[in-house]
Amino acid sequence: MPGRNFLFVPGPTNVPERILRAMDRAMEDHRSSAFPELATGLFRDLKKVFKTTTGQAFIFPATGTGGWEAALVNTLSPGDRVIAPRYGQFSHLWVTSDLGAVRRAMDAAEHPALLYVDGVSSIGSIDFRMDEWKVDLAITGSQKGLMLPAGLGIVCASPKALAARERAKCPRVFFDFGDMIKANATGYFPYTPSLPLLYGLRESLAIIAEEGLENIFARHHRLAEGVRAAVRAWGGGLKLCAKAPKWYSDTVSAILVPEGVNGADVIDVAFRRYNLALGAGLARMAGKLFRIGHLGDLNELMLLGAIAGAEMAMRDVGIKIEAGSGVAAAAEYYRSTAAPLAARAAAPLSPDAQQPPAAGKTTSPRVAARA
Amino acid sequence: MPGRNFLFVPGPTNVPERILRAMDRAMEDHRSSAFPELATGLFRDLKKVFKTTTGQAFIFPATGTGGWEAALVNTLSPGDRVIAPRYGQFSHLWVTSDLGAVRRAMDAAEHPALLYVDGVSSIGSIDFRMDEWKVDLAITGSQKGLMLPAGLGIVCASPKALAARERAKCPRVFFDFGDMIKANATGYFPYTPSLPLLYGLRESLAIIAEEGLENIFARHHRLAEGVRAAVRAWGGGLKLCAKAPKWYSDTVSAILVPEGVNGADVIDVAFRRYNLALGAGLARMAGKLFRIGHLGDLNELMLLGAIAGAEMAMRDVGIKIEAGSGVAAAAEYYRSTAAPLAARAAAPLSPDAQQPPAAGKTTSPRVAARA
Amino acid sequence: MPGRNFLFVPGPTNVPERILRAMDRAMEDHRSSAFPELATGLFRDLKKVFKTTTGQAFIFPATGTGGWEAALVNTLSPGDRVIAPRYGQFSHLWVTSDLGAVRRAMDAAEHPALLYVDGVSSIGSIDFRMDEWKVDLAITGSQKGLMLPAGLGIVCASPKALAARERAKCPRVFFDFGDMIKANATGYFPYTPSLPLLYGLRESLAIIAEEGLENIFARHHRLAEGVRAAVRAWGGGLKLCAKAPKWYSDTVSAILVPEGVNGADVIDVAFRRYNLALGAGLARMAGKLFRIGHLGDLNELMLLGAIAGAEMAMRDVGIKIEAGSGVAAAAEYYRSTAAPLAARAAAPLSPDAQQPPAAGKTTSPRVAARA
Amino acid sequence: MPGRNFLFVPGPTNVPERILRAMDRAMEDHRSSAFPELATGLFRDLKKVFKTTTGQAFIFPATGTGGWEAALVNTLSPGDRVIAPRYGQFSHLWVTSDLGAVRRAMDAAEHPALLYVDGVSSIGSIDFRMDEWKVDLAITGSQKGLMLPAGLGIVCASPKALAARERAKCPRVFFDFGDMIKANATGYFPYTPSLPLLYGLRESLAIIAEEGLENIFARHHRLAEGVRAAVRAWGGGLKLCAKAPKWYSDTVSAILVPEGVNGADVIDVAFRRYNLALGAGLARMAGKLFRIGHLGDLNELMLLGAIAGAEMAMRDVGIKIEAGSGVAAAAEYYRSTAAPLAARAAAPLSPDAQQPPAAGKTTSPRVAARA
Repeated sequence: MPGRNFLFVPGPTNVPERILRAMDRAMEDHRSSAFPELATGLFRDLKKVFKTTTGQAFIFPATGTGGWEAALVNTLSPGDRVIAPRYGQFSHLWVTSDLGAVRRAMDAAEHPALLYVDGVSSIGSIDFRMDEWKVDLAITGSQKGLMLPAGLGIVCASPKALAARERAKCPRVFFDFGDMIKANATGYFPYTPSLPLLYGLRESLAIIAEEGLENIFARHHRLAEGVRAAVRAWGGGLKLCAKAPKWYSDTVSAILVPEGVNGADVIDVAFRRYNLALGAGLARMAGKLFRIGHLGDLNELMLLGAIAGAEMAMRDVGIKIEAGSGVAAAAEYYRSTAAPLAARAAAPLSPDAQQPPAAGKTTSPRVAARA
Repeated sequence: MPGRNFLFVPGPTNVPERILRAMDRAMEDHRSSAFPELATGLFRDLKKVFKTTTGQAFIFPATGTGGWEAALVNTLSPGDRVIAPRYGQFSHLWVTSDLGAVRRAMDAAEHPALLYVDGVSSIGSIDFRMDEWKVDLAITGSQKGLMLPAGLGIVCASPKALAARERAKCPRVFFDFGDMIKANATGYFPYTPSLPLLYGLRESLAIIAEEGLENIFARHHRLAEGVRAAVRAWGGGLKLCAKAPKWYSDTVSAILVPEGVNGADVIDVAFRRYNLALGAGLARMAGKLFRIGHLGDLNELMLLGAIAGAEMAMRDVGIKIEAGSGVAAAAEYYRSTAAPLAARAAAPLSPDAQQPPAAGKTTSPRVAARA
Repeated sequence: MPGRNFLFVPGPTNVPERILRAMDRAMEDHRSSAFPELATGLFRDLKKVFKTTTGQAFIFPATGTGGWEAALVNTLSPGDRVIAPRYGQFSHLWVTSDLGAVRRAMDAAEHPALLYVDGVSSIGSIDFRMDEWKVDLAITGSQKGLMLPAGLGIVCASPKALAARERAKCPRVFFDFGDMIKANATGYFPYTPSLPLLYGLRESLAIIAEEGLENIFARHHRLAEGVRAAVRAWGGGLKLCAKAPKWYSDTVSAILVPEGVNGADVIDVAFRRYNLALGAGLARMAGKLFRIGHLGDLNELMLLGAIAGAEMAMRDVGIKIEAGSGVAAAAEYYRSTAAPLAARAAAPLSPDAQQPPAAGKTTSPRVAARA
Repeated sequence: MPGRNFLFVPGPTNVPERILRAMDRAMEDHRSSAFPELATGLFRDLKKVFKTTTGQAFIFPATGTGGWEAALVNTLSPGDRVIAPRYGQFSHLWVTSDLGAVRRAMDAAEHPALLYVDGVSSIGSIDFRMDEWKVDLAITGSQKGLMLPAGLGIVCASPKALAARERAKCPRVFFDFGDMIKANATGYFPYTPSLPLLYGLRESLAIIAEEGLENIFARHHRLAEGVRAAVRAWGGGLKLCAKAPKWYSDTVSAILVPEGVNGADVIDVAFRRYNLALGAGLARMAGKLFRIGHLGDLNELMLLGAIAGAEMAMRDVGIKIEAGSGVAAAAEYYRSTAAPLAARAAAPLSPDAQQPPAAGKTTSPRVAARA
């Protein structure tokens, strides 16, 4: 299909060109004396993204799922009980105050449990404060807020989690923290790392530092608010899964389709006709909704293109919404919240703005005849 | 700035990822025995894009401007007269019938003049028939319909033009057809070619063949019609420069802004605030309009994002148009003209559509506590 | 450092430009209706590389180490005994007949054990016949014979191994075959795959098919023979770890340095002074040897550069070998075994071969003066 | 063919990976307000490479040949006489003192002529001092010392040359300095530039600054000396074209083959059998020699691989030289002139150096059996 794919699933996210470039490289010896400089910087800068100074970051050549396995098998023993609270399939976002509340409740009860947090869809996109919230194990993958392809499972462990490791009896080899701790201490990995992803992570962390974490969070919130404004403007039986603002996610919006419509049809038409990838409803929500991922390397016009595409696909499958209504609402929100611009420079935009084009520079066919 | 730039100037156009990949390569010896296979295929396939079987294609490591110089210095002598009809700065598109009409008029007068055509913004995007229209010199560059970076000036010469070369007395070295003819005959170039661009052209010609020239023309027409529908829907003193459909260009639309508004302000706000690159008005039209280029590797959602961005920038500078009006009109046009889809496969979109996500696969933070 | 790094560790290996290009791409929705075409082709073609028609290939977003964990936890229960024969740290290559011999011994004893084979350094480089040798679990990684970066752990399981899975009681989540079997059946993965590596694998399998497995094995053998000829020519107390040809590896040569010399010094000088990455001796062999990896995308001149660099580094640290001796021996071996060439085409190599260069085409400074 | 091509023609040269990455990017609007930052930096840093503070650099989307045409048509009028001294087809290198001598002779005669210098094969590789030597027009291309693909013709003009432009009457459009001066003054180009090459040039100039011009010249001299040592060691009727050291070029060595041997056969065998690209003899020297280009992004082992390949090809076509003789001579020269290394760090090269590999990390097949 001509033109770019509009990728709006909740992951993988769009990989910025800078990161694609950083990954495009020859292999090297990951045991050379030059290698530790790369690895050491990654560990140092990852901790900033987790907002921890006391934790230790681990980079597994796996995925977020693998990161979860690593977090669990390094800190648990067979028979340990795990409480995994569940808040609905699509709106189980813990807004930040709630996570602090859980921690406070655990502290109040003087409960010794470790606190594990799935940050796969949040870290690098919405606020996360490992030290302040006393999180013990925070897990993420490379393919969301870090704007990389999948292939890295990243875990950050608190000192308490590392201490728990000594007692944990779950068998572990590939995901063992111990091998990592020993090798990472000198800037190496216990087995061959995926070099393109490490170099991509190096660039990702640089991009994050340049924009600034708080600016990134604000951008995600603003883009998400635009999407939510679009959903409200659509009306027509469409609504967000999240029933109240406190459940809103700044990284993905799940949108319930009206009774009698199959959400999978919206997704299918969007993909095959308009080259737009939307997320599906999972499990018992399959068919009842579609999702727009809005995390990672995104800006207003990308979102507006996606909202326009979702509108078209919805109208194609018979949902009664007004054409352009969502785009208009989102666009107006973006306009009203845009940062002020410095005045335009007095200089002409380009030399062409002041002179007629020379032969051959015009933008359409011309005819010349030799007489 | 986060996210992708929306590039909607009339050139350079978006380079498809396939072409970027094709250009990303080590150098090689352009005098090796393996090289001619590449060059020979390029000449063969370029002729198809020009719709000529009798002409000869030349590839200069230059630009469209350089291609024009090549066309002129190889076929003219000092003192020759050249008639270059001018049809307005922005709407001087020759619709295809007119070009045929010029040819017929020349034929009727039995006029021996050579017919030169500037195809920089048309070849590969709108219909062009070198042989049928008896064009003698057709010129294009790499950075428009061919979807490449700038850096190639491409000229196609008819047998009559090649015969004229024998008598032409303009001095020429770099742009000499003669050196090219001699070297190209064996699959080589007289001086070092830009290898990335040649490999990019190889991929460009493959992409064009896969989509099909007529399909490409139809896509450009359809995308352009959507833009024109948007302009009509905007109203508010905005109008197309092209006063009648016969002047419409399927590759670029020039849009006059209302009195009292500086078109350069629209362009400036679009670029700095929304990461959207629009084209400027040139010479005496500077400030009176902006241009949306819609040629090359584009699809509906890219255009809709650009139209949305243009709307936002226009509203930001005070133009009275209704938010979303242009996007809605274009989107509805695209919907109404979309190709029918085959029925959706019965198979589930993915395994996840039928099963709950495993640990770590969800899209938002979760909490687990070891008890 | 200027110029290319010479990468001659036993892994990662050199990634061909074609594969680098294939990996350099935007992300896409791995749950789209278009995705299964990619995945299905990978499974089909991987089986050819393992030489199996009855086995099933698994692709984990991990490493060869992870592939081993997958093979074990999916087929074993706690308490099962595993026999892992060990044949020395560096020469434990099983020459192909031996692996068949093990199988025959097991068959003769009617022993029901599963046969696991570590093919990390052999599959795609030296002959491996899963079906013929009745291997049950074969494991490899992406970063050796498959010429990719690390990041994929690939396992091929026989029907017998898959049947054993039903009874195996080792806990498993990330590495579970079951989730893979279910998702792969429709062309998907149970969690987000590393798309660049999958596209790279697509290209790797194409390259392997184009050269042909048997040709690849022959090339590896020939390149390895050249290295061994160099070691023999060096003399001076240097010798291969492998004490007899039956222990030779066609993918890596471990070279014992003379008493009193630290192999790590050779490696260090080679890397820091000559940009050559050699492999180290492991564990109790640390310091006693260095290794030259010679697998993957290699040719004669790359090897000769590496041999020259090893010679220089050895002489720098005081090893008494004759300069050029190893290169000469390897080069002569390569010459004597080179495939015959078709006669050179009568045509000139290039137009320049027959005409003087035009202005500016020469290869050195010239001076012109306007008088 | 498997493995890397060894590219040793005198141009194009090897493009470093950093530059390939820098060129791999989406297009952008070359008339945007953000663009001048790129262009302005290029002009500033190019002047450093030419060693001029008073000159002005021009970047044409052409080649070195085009750069020559630009230099001539902007400073000459029809009928002007040009003296182009010729010093033999292959050894007409002006060693630096000679160029100063020409200048001194012109000054002594108070001759008003402009001094044009072809720096295509020297600038960025061997010393060039535009201001000190009072060069008026210096010309280069992108594909040699600047380590880029072909596609840029670069000219540096002295104030005297720019003054001559006012009087010069040669017709010029594409190559007109005037358009460039006007557009460049604000950081733009008069027609669409080749963006990948400009970004590549940005990286090239960064690489050059990091290594340092004088270090680059020293590296080129050292690598060239090694090649010349190899030729001397070969003996056997082979000799350098350059009859005395003062004619030596540090960027290319032309090597005369013995009577009765066709140099084109050496080149052909090297290319088709060993994937080595050597340069040919031009014009009346065709067949009498082959050339090894040794400029750009090169190091010792790349050269040694090329020398080994040339040896093999020469022996294949029957030239009587001793195998390994050239490699040995060059290698010893490189060893004897290598920079001293700091002491090796006490730390182990890698964790593997001290511990046995875990399952799956070994480099060859192993067998495990479940009992």
